[in-house]
Amino acid sequence: MTERDAANAEALRRLCESEPVLVDVRPAGEVVPAFEPNLILTSGAPLQFAEYEGGQREAIIGAALFEGLARSREDAIAQLASGTIRVDGCHDYGCVGSLAGVYTASMPVFVVENPPFGNRAFCNFYEGKERRRLNYGCYDEGVHERLLHVNDVLGPVLGEAVRSRGGIELGPIMQRAVQMGDELHSRSAAATLLFEEALALPLLGLARTSEAAVRALYEAFDGNDYHFLRLSMASCKAACDAAHGIAGSSVVTAMTFSCRGFAIRVSGLGNSWSRGPHATVQAKLFDGHTEDEITWMGGESIIAETAGLGGFAQAAALPLQRYQGGSAQAMIDRNLELYAITAGEHTKYRIPLFDYRGTPVGIDVLRVSETRITPAMDVGIPGRDGGQIGAGFIRAPIECFDAAANAYRERYL
Amino acid sequence: MTERDAANAEALRRLCESEPVLVDVRPAGEVVPAFEPNLILTSGAPLQFAEYEGGQREAIIGAALFEGLARSREDAIAQLASGTIRVDGCHDYGCVGSLAGVYTASMPVFVVENPPFGNRAFCNFYEGKERRRLNYGCYDEGVHERLLHVNDVLGPVLGEAVRSRGGIELGPIMQRAVQMGDELHSRSAAATLLFEEALALPLLGLARTSEAAVRALYEAFDGNDYHFLRLSMASCKAACDAAHGIAGSSVVTAMTFSCRGFAIRVSGLGNSWSRGPHATVQAKLFDGHTEDEITWMGGESIIAETAGLGGFAQAAALPLQRYQGGSAQAMIDRNLELYAITAGEHTKYRIPLFDYRGTPVGIDVLRVSETRITPAMDVGIPGRDGGQIGAGFIRAPIECFDAAANAYRERYL
Repeated sequence: MTERDAANAEALRRLCESEPVLVDVRPAGEVVPAFEPNLILTSGAPLQFAEYEGGQREAIIGAALFEGLARSREDAIAQLASGTIRVDGCHDYGCVGSLAGVYTASMPVFVVENPPFGNRAFCNFYEGKERRRLNYGCYDEGVHERLLHVNDVLGPVLGEAVRSRGGIELGPIMQRAVQMGDELHSRSAAATLLFEEALALPLLGLARTSEAAVRALYEAFDGNDYHFLRLSMASCKAACDAAHGIAGSSVVTAMTFSCRGFAIRVSGLGNSWSRGPHATVQAKLFDGHTEDEITWMGGESIIAETAGLGGFAQAAALPLQRYQGGSAQAMIDRNLELYAITAGEHTKYRIPLFDYRGTPVGIDVLRVSETRITPAMDVGIPGRDGGQIGAGFIRAPIECFDAAANAYRERYL
Repeated sequence: MTERDAANAEALRRLCESEPVLVDVRPAGEVVPAFEPNLILTSGAPLQFAEYEGGQREAIIGAALFEGLARSREDAIAQLASGTIRVDGCHDYGCVGSLAGVYTASMPVFVVENPPFGNRAFCNFYEGKERRRLNYGCYDEGVHERLLHVNDVLGPVLGEAVRSRGGIELGPIMQRAVQMGDELHSRSAAATLLFEEALALPLLGLARTSEAAVRALYEAFDGNDYHFLRLSMASCKAACDAAHGIAGSSVVTAMTFSCRGFAIRVSGLGNSWSRGPHATVQAKLFDGHTEDEITWMGGESIIAETAGLGGFAQAAALPLQRYQGGSAQAMIDRNLELYAITAGEHTKYRIPLFDYRGTPVGIDVLRVSETRITPAMDVGIPGRDGGQIGAGFIRAPIECFDAAANAYRERYL
């Protein structure tokens, strides 16, 4: 076994042996280390504010206004430019952002602990079914109201329920969900139901004191399959962070993109990002939308793929073909192909169609660079004018992996 | 189009266009037509009491004792033999029995309406996880207590919740569940969760007046995937009864078995049963059990297969391989083979792996007799000494189909 094999085996072990537990729900400013009141987090390898464009820029400005950090749009832009309001990348704070992925101090986050490795990760809330959302680059009165509802009603009551239950183990939920048609990125239908089931008794206990809030929570969840995504993201981030920082490992521990391009981070190469152009996309758009509307405004839900889920578990989630297009066979073939670029197979996420073979996990930059097979990822597709206009899958750009492979060879070979 | 084709197309239409709605939960004696206080229903084409043997006989005796119809086991046997306590087959009362499938007047039943065709069907409750259950031929103090808990706590609170919600449409739940790894016979994991979700708000509304009962209901459901089976059975029975009685149709509208053998009923052949020997079985037994323990004590949950689910939707429920044995490919091949014996494909239950092709539905006795391919059905396996000892799939005996095909030819050709 080479030094690289040994280091990658250790990264694989940490990815598989992580045990995410939801322990609390609190405002980011209270629980995320180093989160200052004037901080806004966003998706992607960090940029200067002036470099953010389109929907991601709008989301950052909207976040500043929502948080009350600025009196007006102009004031927000001025403060963001001068640095009075700071912008930074989610990943360095144990967070991951969905789409534009903006976080402000008042937003409640899921607090996920990973007891075997002693680390924590966070994710903020799904805003709801409405296509206009802050994380899709929209900010208006409706968006503001729905975010306040999350801050003031859904976050607090969920936090109380989670604490009263002494936490919720997310691993068993995620493992079962993969047997029930979820890949836990673009499809979390079963996991959302299993999470609701885990909450049923604690919520019943809160019914006497907080019936209206409990009712609001059920109404938010009812028939809405996306809630668990944020818990999946925090869980995957906890596993990936645990696998980061192993000398000699060529395993990817983060993939991210901003409006400007894609970037990856490798376990044995420290905290620097290997940057590249945008991913390529194959989308199924909602009725009335066209390909030229597709835009990039960031995204870190691809932490799911980094942890062996999402595109790496597509063959467990064939109903996705209706949402993001493609045939069952295309999804199966794509999933099988990805075994060529990973350090191994997941010991807990297993695919029934493959007679319970584990999902491919631990993307090895050297294998990607050699085989030219790049990670396939399931994502929501935002439109130029804000809002979600469809879903599909994207392929990470090879440039990031070539750059990281070169950096790895320089350092270790 | 022959007369038979037209009649079978009508049977298929009724199977597909049925819309099961859970409207109430009440004791069988209050809602099942012609249910007298001294009546016990059981699975299978009806027999004289003396003909019931093994676990099914034990279940009937247990039911008489549970209902308080007899002072002792001896008294129950005497009254059952003399006819003071009557035994009859479930199917003629709009009911279907799980395993031995005994019903007494006090047992709560799910009341499922089928508005497009104006008929009703019923099913009593799952007794819980304990392997010793009345419907698996066991009756003792523990079984008695768990049945009382269903009668006195779970049935009434569930009934109140269902009525307060104005009923629950089961069709959408079942269609979604087939996208989530359920075939709604041996696997109802997703459907149970979706049903719980539909109940969440009504149960919250009952928390103030009946918190203990609501808590008990959640405790019964928590992590227990089998609850929905009884709703699936009642729904399938409603669809099959709607498709029964079409002159010229060779489509099977009921399959059933007792301890003595298998039997089927055909849409165009009235209410008589075509009887045959037992099915053949391929089982995966729980640890510590052996094949020679396997016994027959009746079963009508195969109404699922009659309606295009269960074994006819195995390729949508590959996780079943862990419970009942076999590989993914074997399940897929078996499912594909069944298209050769059905009148058509379901318009609502669709298999993601087959790019949303509908499940094979409307078993045609002539096609079975010609192809010698018999229906494959997913079932729980009972042991000689009572209780569940495993799960597996069974193949209906060809003799029933040959007999029905002959009867059909005599009548129509």
